[in-house]
Amino acid sequence: MSSLKPSIPKGTRDFGPEQMAKRNFIFNSIRNTYTRYGFLPLETPSMENLDVLTGKYGEEGDQLLFKILNSGDYLSKIDRNLLSETFSQNLTPLISEKGLRYDLTVPFARFVVMHQNEITLPFKRYQIQPVWRADRPQKGRYREFYQCDADIVGTDSLICEAEIIAIIHEVFKKLGIEDYTININHRKILSGLAEIIDSKDRENDLFVAIDKLDKIGLDKVLSELESKGFSTESLSVLKDVLNKKGNEGLKIEQVAARLADSETGKAGVEDMNEIMALAGTYLDDLSHINFDLTLARGLTYYTGAILEVKVNNVKIGSVGGGGRYDNLTGVFGLPGLSGIGFSFGVDRLYDVMDELTLFPESQQVTTKVLLTYFDHSTRATAIKLLQELRQQGINAEIYPDLVKMKKQLNYANKKNIPFVVVIGEEELKNQRYGLKNMSTGEQKAVDKSTLLSIVNEHN
Amino acid sequence: MSSLKPSIPKGTRDFGPEQMAKRNFIFNSIRNTYTRYGFLPLETPSMENLDVLTGKYGEEGDQLLFKILNSGDYLSKIDRNLLSETFSQNLTPLISEKGLRYDLTVPFARFVVMHQNEITLPFKRYQIQPVWRADRPQKGRYREFYQCDADIVGTDSLICEAEIIAIIHEVFKKLGIEDYTININHRKILSGLAEIIDSKDRENDLFVAIDKLDKIGLDKVLSELESKGFSTESLSVLKDVLNKKGNEGLKIEQVAARLADSETGKAGVEDMNEIMALAGTYLDDLSHINFDLTLARGLTYYTGAILEVKVNNVKIGSVGGGGRYDNLTGVFGLPGLSGIGFSFGVDRLYDVMDELTLFPESQQVTTKVLLTYFDHSTRATAIKLLQELRQQGINAEIYPDLVKMKKQLNYANKKNIPFVVVIGEEELKNQRYGLKNMSTGEQKAVDKSTLLSIVNEHN
Repeated sequence: MSSLKPSIPKGTRDFGPEQMAKRNFIFNSIRNTYTRYGFLPLETPSMENLDVLTGKYGEEGDQLLFKILNSGDYLSKIDRNLLSETFSQNLTPLISEKGLRYDLTVPFARFVVMHQNEITLPFKRYQIQPVWRADRPQKGRYREFYQCDADIVGTDSLICEAEIIAIIHEVFKKLGIEDYTININHRKILSGLAEIIDSKDRENDLFVAIDKLDKIGLDKVLSELESKGFSTESLSVLKDVLNKKGNEGLKIEQVAARLADSETGKAGVEDMNEIMALAGTYLDDLSHINFDLTLARGLTYYTGAILEVKVNNVKIGSVGGGGRYDNLTGVFGLPGLSGIGFSFGVDRLYDVMDELTLFPESQQVTTKVLLTYFDHSTRATAIKLLQELRQQGINAEIYPDLVKMKKQLNYANKKNIPFVVVIGEEELKNQRYGLKNMSTGEQKAVDKSTLLSIVNEHN
Repeated sequence: MSSLKPSIPKGTRDFGPEQMAKRNFIFNSIRNTYTRYGFLPLETPSMENLDVLTGKYGEEGDQLLFKILNSGDYLSKIDRNLLSETFSQNLTPLISEKGLRYDLTVPFARFVVMHQNEITLPFKRYQIQPVWRADRPQKGRYREFYQCDADIVGTDSLICEAEIIAIIHEVFKKLGIEDYTININHRKILSGLAEIIDSKDRENDLFVAIDKLDKIGLDKVLSELESKGFSTESLSVLKDVLNKKGNEGLKIEQVAARLADSETGKAGVEDMNEIMALAGTYLDDLSHINFDLTLARGLTYYTGAILEVKVNNVKIGSVGGGGRYDNLTGVFGLPGLSGIGFSFGVDRLYDVMDELTLFPESQQVTTKVLLTYFDHSTRATAIKLLQELRQQGINAEIYPDLVKMKKQLNYANKKNIPFVVVIGEEELKNQRYGLKNMSTGEQKAVDKSTLLSIVNEHN
C-alpha cells in the first residue's frame, strides 16, 4: 500500500470535537423542543430506491440526486453494443437502482404509506438526519447537510400551524437568537391573487416571480412576468397590490379587501386570521410573525400556510421553512392525507450562531477532571479516585502516560478541562489530593469530600 | 406522476418511534459512558474518496463498498469505443470517485492524519454513525447499520486497554446485560505461537484457521492447516497447545510456559499480565474477562491486545470488538502512532436486548400528558395549560381536532401517554381540570398545582 495524502469529497466536512459540541447544542435544543411538543422520533434509510426519489423534486432536483452504483458485475446484463452509443442519462437507470435521500419529506411520506396500518393518526414525527445533494458547493451550501424536520399528518386543524409557530419561538429562545422573523403566507391567498389578475392557469410562473421580489425588486418581477406573457391589465393590478408592501409590510386586511371576489382567496384570509388568533393563545408576543404576500418558497406541494424563518441582520438569513400540504402521500397511493411540516437547517443555524457568538461556553467543557500520576505507587490511587468520580456522574479521565506535569497541564488546557488532580507521595500519605483550578491556576490540598463538592459545584 | 407501491432497498430498515426509543436507550448508554470516560465526539462525512477506502479492508471488503456514480454527464470523458469492451471492474473507477464509508476506523485514521496539527495527543474520540456494506442481507446482517467506536491514539499505555475493559462493563451495567464475556488475546502471543511451530511466515493462514476453533473444532482446524502446507511437526505442537483449552479455558500461565522460547510471545504475555493487573485496579470483579488464545478477529492491523465481547446464552453472540494497532495512520503518511479502538454494534445489541426483554418500559413514554377540549370556549384554556406544562419541562400535547373523547383516549393509549386532561364547561367554571390516569382509568377533578405535582411524580 502506497502512502497518500488523504482528502475528503468537496462539499463535505469533518466535525471535530469543538464543532460537535456546538452542533449538539443546536441538535439538542431542537430535539428537546420537538419532544416537549409530543413529536416522536423516526429514522429512515440513507438510501431509497430511485423510483421513490425521482420525479418529486422537479427536473433540477432529479439531477442533484446522488446515485449509487449497483453492486457486483452491474454491466453483465447490459447489451455491450449499445454501450458505445449510450449517454449518461440513458445508462444511469441501467446501472443504478438506489440513491441517497434528497430531503426528509419524501422518505417520511413513503414511510407513512408503507406503515399506514401501524401508525396512529394524527401522526407527529420528528426526524434529524443528513441529506445529500450534488449541488455546486459554496459558502453555506454543502453536499451533505442535516435537516431537522417535524411533521403532523392526518389532521387539518390549524392548531398545528400555531404549534409550529410556537416551536420556532421555543427553539430560538433555547438557542439565544432574539432578532428573527417568521414570514407566513397562504397558498390560497396566492391562488386568490392569481385569480383576481386572471392568471389562474399560470400560478407557477406568478409565484416563482413574486418570490423574488425581495431580491430583485418590483420592476424586475413585473418585466419577468411580462416576458412570460402576462397581460398589461394583470400586471397593473398586481403592481397595485404589491406596491402596498412598504416598510411595515402588507396587512392581511388590505389583502383581504382585494381578494373579496375570490372564494379561494377569502378562504386563505380566513385561515390566516384563525392562525394568528391561535398563535395569540400560544404566545404572549406576536411581533416576530410577519405576513408576507410574496412568500412562495417555490414548492408546488404546499396547499395551505407557507412558513419561512429568517434571522435578521446576519449574512445567511433563511434557517428554516415549511408549510401545509394536502396530498404529500398521494403519489405513493394514499390520497387525501393533510399535514404540515417544518424543517430547521442546522448548518445554517450553526453559521448564524457563530456569527452572533451565541454558543454558550459551558457547552465546550466535556471532561471536568483530569487525574495525573507520577509513578506506579500513586497510579492505583489515581485510578480508584477516577472511577469514584465517574460513578458520581462526573466526566473524568486519567493521563495515560508517565510524562512531565507540564505536558499533562497542557493537555488539560487544550481540552478545556477545568480541574486537574495531582497525587504525589505526600498527598498519598495524608489522604489528600492536590486540586488545581485551571482557570485561576490555584492549587490546594483537599480531602476527597471537599474535592467532590468543589468539582460538583462547578457548572 | 403515477402512483406506485413504495418499498425500501433490501438490507435497510425504517425505525419507527417504538424502535427509536429502544435504539436511543442503547445509543445514550454508550454515548454517556464514552463521555464519562473523557472521549470527545467526532463525525466524518458519509462519503469518502474511493482512494481513501479501497485497499483497507481486503479484496472482499473492496467489493462490499457502495460506490457513488459521478454527477453530471459522467460518460462524457470516456472513449465510447472502449465502452463496448469494458467490464464493470474497469468501468467503475472511470465513473465513480466516491464511496460510502465501510467502517469508522479508516475515516478516523484519515481524520487524524488530516488534522494532526490541530488535535492534542493522546486523542480520545468517539464516533456514532452508520456504515454501509453491500453484503448479502440476512438475519442480523444489514446493509446500513450503526457502529459506536471509541479510540485513543497517541499513546501505548496499557491503561487504555484497562479503560476499554471498564467501559464495556459500564455500558453493559447501564443496559442491564449481566451474562457476558469479554474475550481477550494478544497479537504477540499469537505471533509467538506461530514462532514456536516454525510458521512465522504463515501467520495469517494460522490465525484465520484457529479463529474458527469454536465453530468447527480442533480437528477441522488442523486439517485446514495441513491442506495449507503446515508440517506434521508444527501441527503436533499446535495440537498440544490448543488441546489444553478445556471448559475452564487456557490460562495465561500455561501459554507463557510454552512461549518461553519466543521473545515476541513473552512480550505478549507480559502485556497481558499487566492489562489484567490494571483491570483489577479498575474493577472489583474480573469474572467477565476470559483469555482466549484462539481469538484473532481476522484483522491484520491489530498489533497488541485483541478484544471481543459476547453475550452468553443468546442467538447473536458477538456485540463488539476491538484492539490495539500500531500503524493505523501509516497508510495515510503518518507512521508510528499507536492506538486502541473498540466498537459496539448497536443493531446486534438491540436484537440481544429484545431477546432478553431488557428494554425498560419507562423508555417508551415520550409524551406525558394529552390535553383534550370539547369546544372553542375550552380550547383556549387547554392551550394555556398545555404551554404551562411544557414550560415546566413536561412533554405534553393537545389533540388537534374536535373529535369524540373515545378517539382521543384511544390516541393516548396507542401513544403510551399516561395522563389525559379533560376540560369541560364545569371544570372551566370551577378552575379545576379532569385528570385521567390511563393505566388505572381513574379520573379526578384537581386544581392546577395538584395536577402538576401528580404528573411530575410519575416517572
